[in-house]
Amino acid sequence: MKKEELEDYLHRNIPLSKAMGLSVGLVEKGKVILKAPFEPNVNHKKTVFGGSLATLATLACWSLLYASLKQFESQHEIVVVHSDISYLRPVKGEFEAVCVFENQEQWGRFLTLLQRKNKGKIVLEALIGDIKEPSVIFKGTFAALSQVS
Amino acid sequence: MKKEELEDYLHRNIPLSKAMGLSVGLVEKGKVILKAPFEPNVNHKKTVFGGSLATLATLACWSLLYASLKQFESQHEIVVVHSDISYLRPVKGEFEAVCVFENQEQWGRFLTLLQRKNKGKIVLEALIGDIKEPSVIFKGTFAALSQVS
Repeated sequence: MKKEELEDYLHRNIPLSKAMGLSVGLVEKGKVILKAPFEPNVNHKKTVFGGSLATLATLACWSLLYASLKQFESQHEIVVVHSDISYLRPVKGEFEAVCVFENQEQWGRFLTLLQRKNKGKIVLEALIGDIKEPSVIFKGTFAALSQVS
Repeated sequence: MKKEELEDYLHRNIPLSKAMGLSVGLVEKGKVILKAPFEPNVNHKKTVFGGSLATLATLACWSLLYASLKQFESQHEIVVVHSDISYLRPVKGEFEAVCVFENQEQWGRFLTLLQRKNKGKIVLEALIGDIKEPSVIFKGTFAALSQVS
């Protein structure tokens, strides 16, 4: 899936992503990077607003699933069902959320469930800030449903 | 604190709250209700976007603390440090986040810490949807720092 295609999809379907100035930095197998500028996401302390951080991280993980499942014939509905977010350090400028998923065994189990039961759940993680000392750690549980035609 | 005063503060300092169409439904001792319309917060499934739900719930709890601490002479910095969000049911129209805090003992401990150490932490909860069968349950840990002049 191309960066432009994902960005266009998000902007068209989720107006808040456009209001935040979201752009897609990278979309490849097992990795998505979403970016956002500082100004539309600022808060009263002149740091990045927690709601914007939560939103970008959620969308990075959602997008990784969306891009990964796009290769299959059947359509999928993907929703976040739970999230756990630690805000560890303030973010003071433009920011990006990085979602990486490399556990092939877990991915295989998720796809098997999705094919057999038309439903699967998976936990994805996104980081904002320095990878060794992140500013935000997001863990989200996402459910995917095959839309059987 | 008046509804209009809180709404104006949020719109001026957090542009995303304005982009979402946030309005203040109620602000009184121990209770804050924030509202948002459907259109700017829609997602690809024509339900309310998870990022908007997380943001409104975070701001409802943040606003409860902000309004409650406004009565004191010293200024306070209030930040979310952790959140746990369960998305239980889709939200299909305009929505509101309700934060209620009635535990006077816990509130007393929080204020004592804030006065003695200039720093306190408190866990607040907000619900979106039916109070008996909520669509979203948000639990957030917030830290307040007294800004000693």
